[in-house]
Parts: sequence; C-alpha cells; structure tokens
Amino acid sequence: MRILVTNDDGIDSPGIYALTQSLKEIGEVIVIAPQKGQSAVGHAITMQIPLRVTKSFKDGKFFGHAVSGTPADCVKIGIRNIMKETPDLVVSGINHGSNTAINIIYSGTVSAAREAAIMDVPSMAVSITNHEVTDFRFAAKISKMLAKEFAGKGIPLGTLLNINIPDVPEEEIAGILLTKQGKSKWDEVYDHRVDPQGRDYYWLTGNLMEVDKAMDTDQIAIKNNYVSVSPIHFDLTDYKTFNKMKTWNIERLLNGKKN
Amino acid sequence: MRILVTNDDGIDSPGIYALTQSLKEIGEVIVIAPQKGQSAVGHAITMQIPLRVTKSFKDGKFFGHAVSGTPADCVKIGIRNIMKETPDLVVSGINHGSNTAINIIYSGTVSAAREAAIMDVPSMAVSITNHEVTDFRFAAKISKMLAKEFAGKGIPLGTLLNINIPDVPEEEIAGILLTKQGKSKWDEVYDHRVDPQGRDYYWLTGNLMEVDKAMDTDQIAIKNNYVSVSPIHFDLTDYKTFNKMKTWNIERLLNGKKN
Repeated sequence: MRILVTNDDGIDSPGIYALTQSLKEIGEVIVIAPQKGQSAVGHAITMQIPLRVTKSFKDGKFFGHAVSGTPADCVKIGIRNIMKETPDLVVSGINHGSNTAINIIYSGTVSAAREAAIMDVPSMAVSITNHEVTDFRFAAKISKMLAKEFAGKGIPLGTLLNINIPDVPEEEIAGILLTKQGKSKWDEVYDHRVDPQGRDYYWLTGNLMEVDKAMDTDQIAIKNNYVSVSPIHFDLTDYKTFNKMKTWNIERLLNGKKN
Repeated sequence: MRILVTNDDGIDSPGIYALTQSLKEIGEVIVIAPQKGQSAVGHAITMQIPLRVTKSFKDGKFFGHAVSGTPADCVKIGIRNIMKETPDLVVSGINHGSNTAINIIYSGTVSAAREAAIMDVPSMAVSITNHEVTDFRFAAKISKMLAKEFAGKGIPLGTLLNINIPDVPEEEIAGILLTKQGKSKWDEVYDHRVDPQGRDYYWLTGNLMEVDKAMDTDQIAIKNNYVSVSPIHFDLTDYKTFNKMKTWNIERLLNGKKN
C-alpha cells in the first residue's frame, strides 16, 4: 500500500512524524506537507503565486517534500507531480487540536483529506484533542489500525473519514464510535487592542458553544473518551431546502423569458 | 432591511461596487470586505495574526470597511464588532468567475456567505461567469431582485443560496433555475518552470472536466444561459456512507474497551 502523508501543522510538526513512523509498518509512505504551519486555512489553494517544493530532512535523513502552500496544495501537487502514481491512501495529520463539529469547515487537516477525496483517492484526516506537546503513541497506533481497516473495507469514492482521538492515556480510551459531524459552533469575540503606534487591531478568540448531546456526534464521542470516525463528503447541496424551494416557483421571477 | 455586503475580490473590485449600488435601492447597505483579493482562499480564517480594519473611500466618499483578512473574517468581524446589530441579510459578490460544481469548495465568495449561514444570518453568494472587465448591470439587478425575494420567503437557517449568473446580454438570459451543486471537477496540471536562479517553481493550471448533464445542476444551468440558484449547507456528514459503515462494526476494533 502506498500512502501519501500530509498535515496542516507543517512538515516539522511532531504529529506528522509520529504518523509517518507508524504508517511505515503497513505500507510505503511518502510525506508531502506544508513548509509552514497552515492551521485554519480551510480549503484554500494557491493560484496567484507559484509553488516551490524542497526536500526536508530529519536527523540527517530525507523525510519528505516541503511545499510552499496549503494542505490542499500538497495533495494536488503531490499526486499530480511529485508521486509517480496515485497513492492507495492519503492520511492527513496527526493534527494538534480536534477537528469536530463546525471546526471541520475551517480545518486545513480535513481539507487535505477532502482534496484527496475529490481526486477519488481514499483518505483519512486524523486529529488529537491537544494543542500542546503530547504523546502521539496511541494516536499513531490507532491511525495505523484504522488505515489498514478502512483501506481493506474500501472507503467509498468521494468520502473521507474524519478521525478524532481523545488525548488521554490508552487505558482511559472508552472505545471507538461511528459518528456524525456535530452542530456545536463558536461564540466568537474579537479582542480589540491598540498597538504602540496607536492603531487598532483585533484578535479572534471565543468559546465553542456545545449544543450536541448525542453520543453518535463527533463532539460528544471525544468528550466521552471515544475515538470518533465520521464519514464526510463534499456534496454541499442542501436537499431538504432544495425540495422546499421547489414550491417557491422562482422561475416566475424572470417572466417573459423562455422557461 | 440591513444588508452586509462582502466579497473575495477585494473592496476595490467593480463587482462589489455594482452590487452595493443596486442593493441600496432595497435596504441599508454596509460594506465590509477584504483589503486585497482573496480568490480561492476557501473558508480560511485569520487566527495567527490580528486583523486590521480601515476605512475605504470611493470618489472621495466613505464606501466601506476594509479588513486585512479573508472573506470569512469579514463576516465574522463585521457582525461581531463593526455592525451594531446582526444584519438581516449577507450578500457576497459579485464575484468575477462562476462558483459552480467543485469550485464551491475553493471559493472565498461562497465561504463568506457560508460563514453568515453558520452565524444564523440569511445569506447569498453571487458570481458572474466572467474573469475580465464586464458589464455588471444585469447581475446587479438580478441580485437585488433575488435578495428581496429570498429575504421575503425566509432563507432557512443554516442554508445559503449560491447564485451564478451567465455573462451574456440580458436579452439572452434564458430564465432562472433552482439547481444542485454539479459534480464537474478540475483536471489539474502543474506547469513546471525554472526561475532565473535555476530553481523550480510550479503554477497550478488545468481544465474543468464537465461531467454534469442535468439542467438542474449549477454547471449546466449557466452553460444554457440560466441564472442558477442552489441551496448549500455546511452539514458535511455523508449519511449514505454513515449507514453503510454501520455494517462495518468498527467498535470491535478496540476490543476489551468498555463498549
């Protein structure tokens, strides 16, 4: 199995290193990741400036390809140019900080896996609920287990699996659950400050308002120490509203036209 | 009706100016838009650096607030800080270039409207199928008509309306259609070049592979000169795969755990 590994924290992050070491036990791994941290870039792609690709080394040995762009860029240029053939699996992570509920929208980690899904390559995004230095051993082990399992089962084309792992000792992990994207959102505040030149500036801050209750949502699963696995796709059509809007008869708005 | 207008081409773009002038006929408009062009930034938000907000003028008169961030940032800081109260409607555009099919994923224009939907504010994204200087008159007129219509009907919470307008003379517009996100994707190529210092660089380029056929998809509607209106949401759960994965029994993978 050939596995493309990427992330959004940058190629020097400990999370991608732990993931890579673990996945090497089940396949051939190629690392293609952003040169610099790219948290919260969402599904940004680089079009106005060209991309650069450089070799990245760890302990004097070649580790992977560093791309001067976003996580989605890494998957695109990785599959189109750097790799000689399409990988069997793309794994993005291990991200510092969970990617559950509304955070999926902002996440570079998930967007890299989503870019793979768009390219019809099976993919997984992996995040751990911790923003500080942490022990990635269990997260790396479960990533390997799930990569093997899901590659075997066959992730449906156009779907990515979004995996969130609680940052607790392995013996406290409650199990693993199939989940849906939660509905919890941020209650944001901009922290207004004044710089030494007297000019205003604003820092984004806020708290996640937890509205989810069901154990089969990503947000509640990780809160209860379950590893969460959610299937995510990129068909954004709101079919419920689509059906409702049929009764609005919007075609009448351009009367005198052909329809 | 109080309308927050934003875009991804930047506050100096002619598209946002045409949109603003037209929407002023049906409500009180406040412009809060990126200082610089932000195409293809997706749903990126600014967290690592603070935001700046400056006043922008047109013909010597105050036009709007310029934000040193992304389209999603503009909606967040616009609603949380700049405006005194939540707007009745957010309109993002008029974007140079259609946002149909897979392009919705990458679009800053759509992401601004999506950020509004996340904040429970009714919203629309408006794009025209033209990347050059163009005549925005019809697009601005139809945007006003649809803003009035949809604000009256009540856009369901959590949904945004993605509107695409063919860049043809008004008399060639075939009508208006309710559509779904198409499935057309990019066949991408990285154009590899060498700079004067002998270093490699890569430009993203490619063609949209049109796989859609049905008239009720955004991609085919605009191709046939229809104004396209698609309801879009941010629940990314792939329910079909979710149901399929129930039979995978992934809970067994962590045997010996509580569940």
